[in-house]
Amino acid sequence: MRLLAGVYVITDRFANLSLTHIDIVRYAVEGGASAVQLRDKQATTRQLWEWGLAIREITSRAKVLFFVNDRVDIALACEADGVHLGDDDLPVPAARRLLGAKRLIGRSVANEEEAIAAIRQGADYVSLGSIFATDTKPDAGPPVGLERLKKVRSVLPQDYPLVAIGGINLSNADKVFEAGADAVAVISAVAKADDPSQAVRSLLDLWRRIRGGDRG
Amino acid sequence: MRLLAGVYVITDRFANLSLTHIDIVRYAVEGGASAVQLRDKQATTRQLWEWGLAIREITSRAKVLFFVNDRVDIALACEADGVHLGDDDLPVPAARRLLGAKRLIGRSVANEEEAIAAIRQGADYVSLGSIFATDTKPDAGPPVGLERLKKVRSVLPQDYPLVAIGGINLSNADKVFEAGADAVAVISAVAKADDPSQAVRSLLDLWRRIRGGDRG
Repeated sequence: MRLLAGVYVITDRFANLSLTHIDIVRYAVEGGASAVQLRDKQATTRQLWEWGLAIREITSRAKVLFFVNDRVDIALACEADGVHLGDDDLPVPAARRLLGAKRLIGRSVANEEEAIAAIRQGADYVSLGSIFATDTKPDAGPPVGLERLKKVRSVLPQDYPLVAIGGINLSNADKVFEAGADAVAVISAVAKADDPSQAVRSLLDLWRRIRGGDRG
Repeated sequence: MRLLAGVYVITDRFANLSLTHIDIVRYAVEGGASAVQLRDKQATTRQLWEWGLAIREITSRAKVLFFVNDRVDIALACEADGVHLGDDDLPVPAARRLLGAKRLIGRSVANEEEAIAAIRQGADYVSLGSIFATDTKPDAGPPVGLERLKKVRSVLPQDYPLVAIGGINLSNADKVFEAGADAVAVISAVAKADDPSQAVRSLLDLWRRIRGGDRG
Protein backbone atom coordinates (compact mmCIF):
# COMPACT_ATOMS: atom_id res chain seq x y z
CA MET A 1 0.00 0.00 0.00
CA ARG A 2 1.29 3.44 -0.90
CA LEU A 3 2.02 5.96 1.86
CA LEU A 4 -0.91 8.10 0.79
CA ALA A 5 -3.73 6.60 -1.20
CA GLY A 6 -7.35 7.48 -1.69
CA VAL A 7 -8.69 10.23 0.52
CA TYR A 8 -6.83 12.80 2.64
CA VAL A 9 -9.22 14.89 4.73
CA ILE A 10 -8.23 18.38 5.87
CA THR A 11 -10.22 19.70 8.81
CA ASP A 12 -11.84 23.13 8.69
CA ARG A 13 -14.06 24.34 11.52
CA PHE A 14 -15.38 27.23 9.41
CA ALA A 15 -16.50 25.18 6.38
CA ASN A 16 -19.36 23.78 8.43
CA LEU A 17 -19.94 25.52 11.74
CA SER A 18 -21.83 22.56 13.16
CA LEU A 19 -18.74 20.32 12.92
CA THR A 20 -15.64 20.54 15.12
CA HIS A 21 -12.18 19.44 13.96
CA ILE A 22 -12.69 16.27 15.98
CA ASP A 23 -16.08 15.58 14.35
CA ILE A 24 -14.52 15.85 10.89
CA VAL A 25 -11.69 13.51 11.86
CA ARG A 26 -14.19 10.97 13.18
CA TYR A 27 -16.17 11.08 9.93
CA ALA A 28 -12.95 10.85 7.89
CA VAL A 29 -11.79 7.78 9.79
CA GLU A 30 -15.23 6.19 9.57
CA GLY A 31 -15.27 6.69 5.81
CA GLY A 32 -11.85 5.14 5.32
CA ALA A 33 -9.57 8.16 4.79
CA SER A 34 -5.89 7.26 4.75
CA ALA A 35 -4.81 10.59 6.24
CA VAL A 36 -6.20 13.61 8.07
CA GLN A 37 -4.69 17.04 8.52
CA LEU A 38 -5.46 19.44 11.35
CA ARG A 39 -5.52 22.89 9.79
CA ASP A 40 -6.54 26.04 11.68
CA LYS A 41 -4.76 29.33 11.14
CA GLN A 42 -6.91 31.17 13.73
CA ALA A 43 -6.59 28.87 16.71
CA THR A 44 -4.33 29.37 19.71
CA THR A 45 -1.46 26.98 20.32
CA ARG A 46 -3.30 25.60 23.34
CA GLN A 47 -6.38 24.81 21.23
CA LEU A 48 -4.32 23.15 18.50
CA TRP A 49 -2.54 21.07 21.11
CA GLU A 50 -5.79 19.91 22.73
CA TRP A 51 -7.36 19.05 19.37
CA GLY A 52 -4.14 17.40 18.22
CA LEU A 53 -4.04 15.08 21.24
CA ALA A 54 -7.63 14.01 20.62
CA ILE A 55 -6.99 13.50 16.90
CA ARG A 56 -3.86 11.48 17.64
CA GLU A 57 -5.92 9.10 19.76
CA ILE A 58 -8.59 8.61 17.14
CA THR A 59 -6.16 8.21 14.24
CA SER A 60 -3.77 5.90 16.11
CA ARG A 61 -6.58 3.53 16.90
CA ALA A 62 -7.71 3.56 13.25
CA LYS A 63 -4.16 3.49 11.79
CA VAL A 64 -4.84 6.68 9.86
CA LEU A 65 -1.98 9.12 9.19
CA PHE A 66 -2.21 12.38 11.13
CA PHE A 67 -0.60 15.53 9.77
CA VAL A 68 -0.55 18.99 11.30
CA ASN A 69 -0.67 21.99 8.99
CA ASP A 70 2.31 24.31 9.43
CA ARG A 71 3.02 23.74 13.12
CA VAL A 72 6.02 21.54 13.86
CA ASP A 73 5.63 22.24 17.60
CA ILE A 74 2.09 20.85 17.63
CA ALA A 75 3.12 17.85 15.51
CA LEU A 76 5.90 17.02 17.99
CA ALA A 77 3.82 17.68 21.11
CA CYS A 78 0.93 15.55 19.82
CA GLU A 79 3.14 12.86 18.25
CA ALA A 80 1.55 13.38 14.87
CA ASP A 81 2.91 11.43 11.90
CA GLY A 82 4.09 14.64 10.30
CA VAL A 83 3.44 18.15 9.09
CA HIS A 84 2.19 19.76 5.94
CA LEU A 85 4.14 22.85 4.88
CA GLY A 86 3.36 25.70 2.48
CA ASP A 87 5.24 28.80 1.38
CA ASP A 88 4.41 30.67 4.63
CA ASP A 89 5.66 27.87 6.87
CA LEU A 90 9.10 26.60 7.88
CA PRO A 91 11.29 25.51 4.95
CA VAL A 92 11.42 21.71 4.60
CA PRO A 93 15.07 21.37 5.75
CA ALA A 94 14.43 23.45 8.89
CA ALA A 95 11.36 21.36 9.71
CA ARG A 96 13.29 18.14 9.06
CA ARG A 97 15.94 19.09 11.61
CA LEU A 98 13.25 19.39 14.28
CA LEU A 99 11.13 16.41 13.23
CA GLY A 100 13.85 13.83 12.64
CA ALA A 101 13.96 11.25 9.87
CA LYS A 102 10.91 9.26 10.88
CA ARG A 103 8.21 11.88 10.80
CA LEU A 104 6.71 12.81 7.45
CA ILE A 105 6.80 16.16 5.69
CA GLY A 106 4.36 17.15 2.95
CA ARG A 107 4.87 20.24 0.82
CA SER A 108 2.38 22.29 -1.20
CA VAL A 109 3.55 22.86 -4.78
CA ALA A 110 2.11 24.62 -7.81
CA ASN A 111 4.14 23.09 -10.66
CA GLU A 112 6.83 20.60 -11.70
CA GLU A 113 9.77 22.76 -10.61
CA GLU A 114 8.41 23.20 -7.10
CA ALA A 115 7.62 19.48 -6.87
CA ILE A 116 11.18 18.53 -7.79
CA ALA A 117 12.60 21.11 -5.39
CA ALA A 118 10.41 19.72 -2.58
CA ILE A 119 11.67 16.18 -3.19
CA ARG A 120 15.28 17.38 -3.21
CA GLN A 121 14.69 19.15 0.11
CA GLY A 122 13.40 15.94 1.60
CA ALA A 123 9.60 16.20 1.43
CA ASP A 124 7.89 12.81 1.74
CA TYR A 125 4.95 13.80 -0.44
CA VAL A 126 3.81 16.83 -2.41
CA SER A 127 0.33 18.20 -2.83
CA LEU A 128 -0.47 20.05 -6.03
CA GLY A 129 -3.18 22.67 -6.15
CA SER A 130 -5.53 24.15 -6.59
CA ILE A 131 -6.59 21.69 -9.26
CA PHE A 132 -9.99 23.38 -9.63
CA ALA A 133 -11.35 26.71 -8.41
CA THR A 134 -12.21 26.72 -4.71
CA ASP A 135 -13.45 29.19 -2.16
CA THR A 136 -12.18 27.31 0.90
CA LYS A 137 -8.69 28.77 0.57
CA PRO A 138 -8.94 32.26 -0.93
CA ASP A 139 -5.13 32.61 -1.11
CA ALA A 140 -4.69 29.46 -3.16
CA GLY A 141 -4.03 31.24 -6.48
CA PRO A 142 -5.53 30.39 -9.90
CA PRO A 143 -6.42 26.74 -10.59
CA VAL A 144 -3.59 24.69 -12.09
CA GLY A 145 -5.84 22.18 -13.86
CA LEU A 146 -5.63 18.49 -14.78
CA GLU A 147 -3.00 18.92 -17.50
CA ARG A 148 -0.60 20.36 -14.92
CA LEU A 149 -1.37 17.45 -12.63
CA LYS A 150 -0.40 15.01 -15.41
CA LYS A 151 2.83 16.93 -16.03
CA VAL A 152 3.77 16.89 -12.34
CA ARG A 153 2.98 13.16 -12.20
CA SER A 154 5.25 12.59 -15.18
CA VAL A 155 8.30 14.23 -13.55
CA LEU A 156 7.93 12.48 -10.17
CA PRO A 157 9.32 9.04 -9.38
CA GLN A 158 6.57 6.53 -10.08
CA ASP A 159 6.10 5.60 -6.42
CA TYR A 160 6.42 9.15 -5.01
CA PRO A 161 3.14 10.18 -3.35
CA LEU A 162 1.28 12.91 -5.21
CA VAL A 163 -1.75 14.47 -3.54
CA ALA A 164 -4.14 16.69 -5.49
CA ILE A 165 -6.02 19.48 -3.74
CA GLY A 166 -8.48 22.25 -4.48
CA GLY A 167 -12.10 22.08 -5.54
CA ILE A 168 -12.14 18.29 -5.71
CA ASN A 169 -15.46 16.54 -5.10
CA LEU A 170 -17.46 13.49 -6.13
CA SER A 171 -18.19 14.94 -9.56
CA ASN A 172 -14.58 15.46 -10.62
CA ALA A 173 -12.40 13.18 -8.44
CA ASP A 174 -12.41 10.44 -11.11
CA LYS A 175 -10.54 12.72 -13.52
CA VAL A 176 -8.06 13.63 -10.78
CA PHE A 177 -7.25 9.99 -10.07
CA GLU A 178 -7.03 9.30 -13.81
CA ALA A 179 -4.52 12.16 -14.14
CA GLY A 180 -2.26 10.36 -11.67
CA ALA A 181 -3.08 11.60 -8.17
CA ASP A 182 -2.51 9.00 -5.46
CA ALA A 183 -4.88 10.77 -3.14
CA VAL A 184 -7.31 13.66 -3.19
CA ALA A 185 -7.18 16.17 -0.36
CA VAL A 186 -10.64 17.45 0.45
CA ILE A 187 -12.11 20.01 2.80
CA SER A 188 -15.57 21.14 1.73
CA ALA A 189 -16.41 17.89 -0.07
CA VAL A 190 -16.43 16.24 3.35
CA ALA A 191 -17.19 19.03 5.85
CA LYS A 192 -20.14 20.34 3.83
CA ALA A 193 -21.56 16.95 2.81
CA ASP A 194 -24.93 15.85 4.20
CA ASP A 195 -23.21 12.60 5.15
CA PRO A 196 -19.48 13.31 5.55
CA SER A 197 -18.32 9.73 6.08
CA GLN A 198 -20.33 8.59 3.07
CA ALA A 199 -18.64 11.33 1.02
CA VAL A 200 -15.25 9.89 1.99
CA ARG A 201 -16.46 6.39 1.15
CA SER A 202 -17.70 7.46 -2.28
CA LEU A 203 -14.42 9.22 -3.10
CA LEU A 204 -12.59 6.11 -1.99
CA ASP A 205 -14.77 3.98 -4.29
CA LEU A 206 -13.67 6.15 -7.21
CA TRP A 207 -10.04 5.71 -6.18
CA ARG A 208 -10.42 1.92 -5.92
CA ARG A 209 -12.02 1.74 -9.35
CA ILE A 210 -9.38 3.90 -11.03
CA ARG A 211 -6.17 3.49 -9.03
CA GLY A 212 -6.92 0.37 -7.02
CA GLY A 213 -4.77 -1.73 -9.36
CA ASP A 214 -1.74 0.37 -8.41
CA ARG A 215 -1.82 -0.82 -4.82
CA GLY A 216 1.76 -1.94 -4.22
CA MET B 1 24.57 37.83 37.93
CA ARG B 2 20.97 36.69 37.97
CA LEU B 3 19.44 34.95 34.93
CA LEU B 4 17.20 37.93 34.26
CA ALA B 5 18.11 41.32 35.58
CA GLY B 6 17.28 44.85 34.56
CA VAL B 7 15.43 45.22 31.29
CA TYR B 8 13.61 42.61 29.20
CA VAL B 9 12.41 44.06 25.89
CA ILE B 10 9.43 42.53 24.08
CA THR B 11 9.21 43.39 20.39
CA ASP B 12 6.01 44.73 18.87
CA ARG B 13 5.87 45.86 15.25
CA PHE B 14 2.50 47.58 15.77
CA ALA B 15 3.51 49.74 18.77
CA ASN B 16 5.62 51.89 16.46
CA LEU B 17 5.07 51.27 12.78
CA SER B 18 8.42 52.78 11.85
CA LEU B 19 10.32 50.09 13.78
CA THR B 20 10.69 46.44 12.75
CA HIS B 21 11.22 43.62 15.24
CA ILE B 22 14.89 43.68 14.29
CA ASP B 23 15.16 47.44 14.88
CA ILE B 24 13.72 47.05 18.36
CA VAL B 25 16.13 44.23 19.17
CA ARG B 26 19.07 46.34 17.99
CA TYR B 27 18.00 49.24 20.23
CA ALA B 28 17.42 46.87 23.14
CA VAL B 29 20.87 45.37 22.81
CA GLU B 30 22.45 48.79 22.40
CA GLY B 31 20.77 50.00 25.58
CA GLY B 32 21.94 47.02 27.60
CA ALA B 33 18.82 44.85 27.87
CA SER B 34 19.49 41.43 29.38
CA ALA B 35 16.78 39.71 27.34
CA VAL B 36 14.58 40.23 24.30
CA GLN B 37 11.40 38.44 23.30
CA LEU B 38 10.08 38.10 19.75
CA ARG B 39 6.31 38.43 20.00
CA ASP B 40 4.01 38.57 16.99
CA LYS B 41 0.65 36.86 16.98
CA GLN B 42 -0.16 37.94 13.40
CA ALA B 43 2.97 36.83 11.58
CA THR B 44 3.37 33.69 9.50
CA THR B 45 5.72 30.95 10.65
CA ARG B 46 8.08 31.82 7.80
CA GLN B 47 8.26 35.45 8.92
CA LEU B 48 8.86 34.48 12.56
CA TRP B 49 11.61 32.10 11.47
CA GLU B 50 13.37 34.74 9.35
CA TRP B 51 13.14 37.36 12.11
CA GLY B 52 14.20 34.80 14.69
CA LEU B 53 17.36 33.88 12.79
CA ALA B 54 18.33 37.56 12.52
CA ILE B 55 17.58 38.18 16.20
CA ARG B 56 19.59 35.12 17.18
CA GLU B 57 22.63 36.54 15.40
CA ILE B 58 22.34 39.96 17.03
CA THR B 59 21.68 38.60 20.52
CA SER B 60 24.36 35.89 20.37
CA ARG B 61 26.99 38.46 19.51
CA ALA B 62 25.81 40.69 22.39
CA LYS B 63 25.26 37.80 24.85
CA VAL B 64 21.64 38.85 25.36
CA LEU B 65 19.03 36.20 26.09
CA PHE B 66 16.57 35.58 23.23
CA PHE B 67 13.09 34.28 23.98
CA VAL B 68 10.29 33.50 21.53
CA ASN B 69 6.72 34.15 22.59
CA ASP B 70 4.52 31.04 22.43
CA ARG B 71 6.25 29.23 19.55
CA VAL B 72 8.44 26.32 20.55
CA ASP B 73 9.01 25.44 16.87
CA ILE B 74 10.48 28.87 16.15
CA ALA B 75 12.59 28.77 19.32
CA LEU B 76 14.06 25.41 18.28
CA ALA B 77 14.54 26.33 14.61
CA CYS B 78 16.26 29.61 15.52
CA GLU B 79 18.17 28.20 18.48
CA ALA B 80 16.67 30.77 20.81
CA ASP B 81 17.49 30.55 24.51
CA GLY B 82 13.89 29.73 25.30
CA VAL B 83 10.20 30.49 25.04
CA HIS B 84 7.72 32.56 26.94
CA LEU B 85 4.38 30.86 27.54
CA GLY B 86 0.95 32.16 28.50
CA ASP B 87 -2.41 30.53 29.10
CA ASP B 88 -3.10 30.15 25.35
CA ASP B 89 0.20 28.44 24.63
CA LEU B 90 1.60 24.96 25.27
CA PRO B 91 1.59 23.90 28.92
CA VAL B 92 5.06 24.15 30.50
CA PRO B 93 5.61 20.36 30.76
CA ALA B 94 4.69 19.82 27.09
CA ALA B 95 7.05 22.59 26.03
CA ARG B 96 9.80 21.19 28.26
CA ARG B 97 9.62 17.80 26.54
CA LEU B 98 10.32 19.49 23.20
CA LEU B 99 12.88 22.02 24.41
CA GLY B 100 15.02 19.82 26.62
CA ALA B 101 16.53 20.77 29.96
CA LYS B 102 18.90 23.45 28.71
CA ARG B 103 16.50 25.88 27.07
CA LEU B 104 14.59 28.28 29.27
CA ILE B 105 10.86 28.54 29.81
CA GLY B 106 9.13 31.63 31.14
CA ARG B 107 5.51 31.63 32.23
CA SER B 108 3.01 34.49 32.59
CA VAL B 109 1.27 34.49 35.95
CA ALA B 110 -1.31 36.69 37.64
CA ASN B 111 -0.87 35.78 41.31
CA GLU B 112 1.02 33.73 43.89
CA GLU B 113 -0.79 30.46 43.18
CA GLU B 114 -0.01 30.61 39.47
CA ALA B 115 3.61 31.53 40.20
CA ILE B 116 4.07 28.52 42.47
CA ALA B 117 2.36 26.25 39.96
CA ALA B 118 4.66 27.51 37.20
CA ILE B 119 7.76 26.75 39.28
CA ARG B 120 6.46 23.27 40.08
CA GLN B 121 5.89 22.64 36.36
CA GLY B 122 9.46 23.61 35.65
CA ALA B 123 9.32 27.24 34.51
CA ASP B 124 12.69 28.99 34.74
CA TYR B 125 11.18 32.39 35.42
CA VAL B 126 7.73 33.90 35.84
CA SER B 127 6.43 37.23 34.66
CA LEU B 128 3.69 38.87 36.67
CA GLY B 129 1.30 41.32 35.06
CA SER B 130 -0.16 43.56 34.21
CA ILE B 131 1.34 45.59 37.04
CA PHE B 132 -0.25 48.80 35.74
CA ALA B 133 -2.94 49.49 33.14
CA THR B 134 -1.70 49.13 29.56
CA ASP B 135 -3.18 49.32 26.09
CA THR B 136 -0.44 47.26 24.39
CA LYS B 137 -2.07 43.98 25.32
CA PRO B 138 -5.85 44.46 25.47
CA ASP B 139 -6.41 40.89 26.77
CA ALA B 140 -4.12 41.35 29.76
CA GLY B 141 -6.89 41.66 32.35
CA PRO B 142 -7.15 44.22 35.19
CA PRO B 143 -3.86 45.51 36.68
CA VAL B 144 -2.54 43.44 39.58
CA GLY B 145 -0.64 46.30 41.23
CA LEU B 146 2.53 46.65 43.28
CA GLU B 147 1.13 44.98 46.41
CA ARG B 148 0.50 41.81 44.43
CA LEU B 149 4.04 42.00 43.08
CA LYS B 150 5.40 42.12 46.64
CA LYS B 151 3.25 39.15 47.62
CA VAL B 152 4.44 37.09 44.67
CA ARG B 153 8.04 38.03 45.46
CA SER B 154 7.54 36.87 49.02
CA VAL B 155 6.38 33.38 48.06
CA LEU B 156 9.14 32.75 45.50
CA PRO B 157 12.59 31.42 46.32
CA GLN B 158 14.87 34.40 46.85
CA ASP B 159 16.95 33.75 43.73
CA TYR B 160 14.04 32.77 41.46
CA PRO B 161 13.74 35.28 38.59
CA LEU B 162 10.63 37.45 38.76
CA VAL B 163 9.81 39.68 35.82
CA ALA B 164 7.17 42.41 36.07
CA ILE B 165 5.19 43.44 33.01
CA GLY B 166 2.42 45.82 32.00
CA GLY B 167 2.41 49.59 31.81
CA ILE B 168 5.94 49.92 33.17
CA ASN B 169 7.93 52.99 32.11
CA LEU B 170 10.55 55.42 33.37
CA SER B 171 8.13 57.10 35.73
CA ASN B 172 7.15 53.98 37.67
CA ALA B 173 9.90 51.38 37.16
CA ASP B 174 11.64 52.41 40.39
CA LYS B 175 8.61 51.28 42.41
CA VAL B 176 8.54 48.00 40.49
CA PHE B 177 12.17 47.25 41.28
CA GLU B 178 11.61 48.29 44.90
CA ALA B 179 8.71 45.82 45.10
CA GLY B 180 11.09 43.01 44.20
CA ALA B 181 11.10 42.59 40.43
CA ASP B 182 14.40 41.37 39.02
CA ALA B 183 13.58 42.75 35.62
CA VAL B 184 10.93 44.87 33.95
CA ALA B 185 9.47 43.67 30.67
CA VAL B 186 8.67 46.61 28.43
CA ILE B 187 7.06 47.06 25.02
CA SER B 188 5.79 50.62 24.51
CA ALA B 189 8.32 52.22 26.88
CA VAL B 190 10.99 51.25 24.37
CA ALA B 191 9.20 50.98 21.00
CA LYS B 192 7.42 54.31 21.42
CA ALA B 193 10.36 56.21 22.96
CA ASP B 194 12.00 59.01 20.99
CA ASP B 195 15.30 57.32 21.73
CA PRO B 196 14.61 53.62 22.35
CA SER B 197 18.11 52.59 23.39
CA GLN B 198 18.30 55.54 25.80
CA ALA B 199 14.97 54.40 27.29
CA VAL B 200 16.51 50.98 27.98
CA ARG B 201 19.60 52.63 29.46
CA SER B 202 17.53 54.81 31.77
CA LEU B 203 15.47 51.86 32.99
CA LEU B 204 18.69 49.99 33.59
CA ASP B 205 20.04 52.92 35.61
CA LEU B 206 17.02 52.64 37.89
CA TRP B 207 17.60 48.93 38.27
CA ARG B 208 21.29 49.48 39.13
CA ARG B 209 20.42 52.06 41.71
CA ILE B 210 17.71 49.98 43.40
CA ARG B 211 18.61 46.33 42.76
CA GLY B 212 22.25 46.55 41.74
CA GLY B 213 23.36 45.47 45.20
CA ASP B 214 21.54 42.15 44.70
CA ARG B 215 23.88 41.15 41.88
CA GLY B 216 24.99 37.66 42.83
